[in-house]
Order: sequence, then C-alpha cells, then structure tokens
Amino acid sequence: MVANSMVSRNRFDFREVQDLVVKLTKSSGVPQEDAVVFADALVWADLRGTSTHGVSRVDIYLRRIEKGLINPVADLKIQSRSPGVLVADAGTGLGQVQAVRVLERLYPVATELGVASATIKNSQHFGAASHYCELAAERDMILLVATNSEPAMPAHGSTDAFFGTNPVAASFPTGKGYSIKIDLATSVTARGNILAAAKEGREIPSGWAIDPEGHPTTDAESALQGAVLTMAGHKGYALAMLVEILSGVLSGSAVGSGIGSMYKDMNREQNVGHFFCLFDISSFMDVSLFKERIGSMIDLIKVGRKQPGTDEIFVPGERTNKKVLENKEMGIPIDTATLEELRSLCHKRGVPFTLS
Amino acid sequence: MVANSMVSRNRFDFREVQDLVVKLTKSSGVPQEDAVVFADALVWADLRGTSTHGVSRVDIYLRRIEKGLINPVADLKIQSRSPGVLVADAGTGLGQVQAVRVLERLYPVATELGVASATIKNSQHFGAASHYCELAAERDMILLVATNSEPAMPAHGSTDAFFGTNPVAASFPTGKGYSIKIDLATSVTARGNILAAAKEGREIPSGWAIDPEGHPTTDAESALQGAVLTMAGHKGYALAMLVEILSGVLSGSAVGSGIGSMYKDMNREQNVGHFFCLFDISSFMDVSLFKERIGSMIDLIKVGRKQPGTDEIFVPGERTNKKVLENKEMGIPIDTATLEELRSLCHKRGVPFTLS
Repeated sequence: MVANSMVSRNRFDFREVQDLVVKLTKSSGVPQEDAVVFADALVWADLRGTSTHGVSRVDIYLRRIEKGLINPVADLKIQSRSPGVLVADAGTGLGQVQAVRVLERLYPVATELGVASATIKNSQHFGAASHYCELAAERDMILLVATNSEPAMPAHGSTDAFFGTNPVAASFPTGKGYSIKIDLATSVTARGNILAAAKEGREIPSGWAIDPEGHPTTDAESALQGAVLTMAGHKGYALAMLVEILSGVLSGSAVGSGIGSMYKDMNREQNVGHFFCLFDISSFMDVSLFKERIGSMIDLIKVGRKQPGTDEIFVPGERTNKKVLENKEMGIPIDTATLEELRSLCHKRGVPFTLS
Repeated sequence: MVANSMVSRNRFDFREVQDLVVKLTKSSGVPQEDAVVFADALVWADLRGTSTHGVSRVDIYLRRIEKGLINPVADLKIQSRSPGVLVADAGTGLGQVQAVRVLERLYPVATELGVASATIKNSQHFGAASHYCELAAERDMILLVATNSEPAMPAHGSTDAFFGTNPVAASFPTGKGYSIKIDLATSVTARGNILAAAKEGREIPSGWAIDPEGHPTTDAESALQGAVLTMAGHKGYALAMLVEILSGVLSGSAVGSGIGSMYKDMNREQNVGHFFCLFDISSFMDVSLFKERIGSMIDLIKVGRKQPGTDEIFVPGERTNKKVLENKEMGIPIDTATLEELRSLCHKRGVPFTLS
C-alpha cells in the first residue's frame, strides 16, 4: 500500500503534522478530542507508509464537512439487542472518530464475555482498517475488521463496479516488539494506489483494472471511472461479498453501488458500513502462552529456506514496524500536492501553517 | 472445487451412499449417532460436487482409525474461561463429529449473547468448512470458520511448505431458496484438486505449485511433495497466516509444519485446529429485514452488465444449489477408484456392499 515515491516529498515531524491536522479539523467545527482521534488515525497511516490513507485525505474530509455531508458534531447512537452485540449508527460523523468510540465501548464487553461484535452504519471512509486492529492488539485483544467502501470492483463476470475494495484486517500481539498486521483490500490493488497514480500522472500495471466498457486498461483515470478487478478472480469476489454482507447488509448501511463516492459524489452522503469482532485472548488461553506460540510460529517461518532472490522472509507488520521507527526519527514524507493542499487550507481558515 | 470428470463415474442415490458410510464407520468402532454425523458431512460435500471432501476420503479416515491416529470414541472436552467462548479439545476424534458437537453447544450461547466463539484443538481434517456454516445458516445464524491443515503452502518468499491451504468459510441465509456459500482455500487452488489430478494421472496448470526445490511444476506428484502457492501472492500469505493464528495458535493445536499429513504421516496424529465465530442475525437486525437486504444485493448483482462471454452472473452458492438438486435427483457421482475402495472396505469388514 506504500505509494511509489516518484514525486517530490519532504519529511515532517509527525507530532507537528498531527498538531496541524487537529487545528484544521477543529476549524471545521469538530470538537478538540474528536479532532485528536481523527488526526491520530491519519498520521498513524502516514507513519506506516500508507500515505493513501493519511493526511493526503484531510482536504476531502474537510470539504465534505463544509458540504454538510459529514457531521462534525454527530451523535453516536448505539442500540444493544443482545449482551455481546453493539448496533451503532455513526450519524454521518467522521468514520475514524466513530469507529474508535465504538471500539472503546466494545472493550469491556469483550473483557466480560470473551467476544463481542459491532456494526456501524451511516459512516464514511474511516482510513486504515488496521489502525483499529492495532489499538486492540495493544490491549492483548484481537480485532477483526471488515468495511465496505465506494463502488470499485465488479462481481465476477460483470462489468459494473459494485463492491468497494472491501478490506479485511486483523492484528495480533506477538511479544516481538511489533504486532502482526494483516490488512488487505480484496482487490488486485488498493484503489488508493490508482488514485495516487492518477494524481501523479502515472500508468498502472495491466491486470489491475478495466475501463467503463469492461476493457483492460493501464490508464489510471480510465481505471478510476471503470472498475478495479478482484484479487484471485472468483475468490476475491467471494471475499468482497463476505465483507459487503457483514459490514453493509448486516449493519444497515448502504450496500454496493448504493455507497457514495468520497471524491465524486459531493451531493450525497457515503453511508459506509463497518463490522467489528473483538476477541479477548485471555478467554482462549493465557496471553503469555499465546505470545510464546505466535513467536514460535514467526521464528519457524523466518528460518525457512528462501526462494532465489529473497534475502529475508518477513511476516506482515514486521517491515511496517521498521518504517514507523524510521518515520518517527526522520519525519513522515508528505508529497508536494498534499503539502500545498494543507497550506491552502490553513490560509483559508486562518490557521498558522507551522510545518517546516 | 469440483474435480474434473475425466475418469469414469457412476451415480448413486445419496441416501444409499450415506447408509453405507454409516455402516463402514460403525465397523471401525464409531458410535451410531457419530457415524451418522460423519456420513452426513461427507455426503454433503459429494452432493455439492466437492468430491475431494466427500466419500473419496472414507478409506483414509478409517485407515487412520485402524492405526490409532483417530479415536473413534473420543471425548469432547470443553473449557469455558468466559461466557461467550468455548475452548474445545477434540481428543483426536473425527473432526466432522467434534465440529458439529461444538457447534451444537455454540448455538444457545450465540442466541443468548448475540455472538459466540470456539476453538477446537487435537482434531483432524474435518471436510468441507462450509458444511458447518450452512448448518448455522439454516438457523438464521452466520458462522465464520477457519481451519489450519497439513503443510502445503510456503510463506511469501519461502520454498518450504508451512501453511495448510487454510480455508475461510461463511454462509448467509438469503430467502432465495439457497444460502450464499463462501468457502475458499487461501491457496491458488485446493490441495484436493492436486490430489485428484495425481490420482487420475493428470498434469496441473502452471502457477499452481512449486516442486520440493522451489521450481515451478505442472507435475501433480512433484507438487504434492513440494508446495502449493498462496492466492494473490502476499495477500494469500497474509490470509493464510490469519487462519493459522485463529485456528492454530489460538486453539492450542499444532501450527504450520507441525501438523501431521493425512496421507503421508501414518505414524502420528494430525492435531489440526479449528476456529468458529457464530453470530445471531436477530441480534443485529430482524432476520426478515436481513433477508430482504441480502436479496436486494443479489438482485442488483445479477442484473449488472455482463462481461463478453458471460451468460449469467452468479453469486457463490447459487450454482451449488442447482448441483445439489441435480445430484439428489440423479444420484451423486462416485469415481471408479473410490468405488473400488468402498467395495474393498466392505469386503474386509463383512459389510454388505449395497450400492447399485
């Protein structure tokens, strides 16, 4: 999910970036503590090299608030029909904020019952799904996340974009200084990578997408108007549907092509749905034993024979962890276009542009 | 997962096949009601065209019972550290039987709490994961299943088979006369398809597997000794790991290369692990509303524009349902090799061979 660094990028201290995003978000009417949660989620992604889900999206979120498509002071309504399930309505609030609020309500339920689940409707694109998983992993819990998203991929055999790139994510504490971080779009590639290519005027690899008439294309703009393909053909189709049912059908949110586009539909809400299932590890086995066992698995994988051309076998999350350490030390890279967006937002809102 | 029908196959009434499998299984010391559960699970797969997980495996299960590697009268030990979680030890009993017994214990918990989860260790290859999902769907519940399995796929960048083909599965009631059935190995193809090719002396497509030295191969026997590749490269690797952690690490079963091979390791137990998470739909929304919403999703998908060469867009489970109706009417196809195995088993055990 790391965007290619073919454009000029400067690095900035992540705390300074976070601070600026908080100020900008507050200037849109979002309360201080919600603005902090929101900025945390975006900078979390930039720290991990997932700039497609980072501060490059500040501009569009704030524009959608201006248009009345995101409610900066939304209520979170939670209905509970059963002890282990929270049915949430995000009230078109910021997805990052409402997801964290639901997760906070889910922790004590999972601690008591061992497992707890939640759906969230009337939400937005909520950034990187693995952000929420990692918050849970820090508490020795396992969070499975699924979310639907704006139409991008056709059903197997179809030309029309129906499903979003519908990611699934989970993180696992390891005792190795990092969490195993699994976060995958069910598409051949993340839509963010096509967006980035379009923004930078690059071609995309063949096999990634079809144009609006169903023909294969390497043009990023045509791909954005057409459809991204599911990973592994019918298997990705099945997984995308699994995600759509859990996060969309079951939550009461919009489903498939009913979801509004973040960038293209500036006249209607997105109505994205999210699905959480939270497991308390200690309800299955002692946490120390779990970490010992997952550590042994990692060790076994890493000492396996390597394929020619492979220097080291990595587990998901391992390299991300190195990237975080690097970016905390060196600053997070921000591309010129995003930097200009932030500068312009500051100018319009009378927020001092403090990045240096 | 439907094996190619290049070998001669005859069709038999599924009730007669079921009856024969019950008698054979009882002759191995399995109690009547467990034998029925076991035979149900195998014939369930044959009815759906998934013959790789059907009665073609009766011989190997019974051979493993003979060798003392499967306990025909195993206890099921269930520990409960939290109200919503069952931690089960299958005691090396038949996976199909123990999985159904755990599921039966899980239903009332999910009914009460809205969600319930279970792990099972010391189990075996338990057949088609979607069998358990469909049992739950018939009760208007959603069951997510993950199971590890004998080493078949390398970690991304490695040559050594570590993960099993580690499927994930879920079913959803639709009100359309069939359940959406999602059941996918995280490999490019199901290992059963390579087994079938080897049994029938066929080559496998390139891109499916590597030989024991890590070279691409189309020879089914070399592939069985080497490794099947993960679907979609690193994404399949991440999903296989997700499955391995939930079903293996978290259950206390063997992990990765520690799992015994069903066919090759006739001197040790498999110690497979399974993971269940069961959701009571009515704890999220009224079941009638859920079915209406999933029905609308299906309708929208099916009226989408078709790619050239596509006559109809199907949802997962739709064609399976047609196959079941056909196989109930016409009989389930059984290949000659399997038929001879069954005949020989009957002969050895003094069970009348009643298939005609």
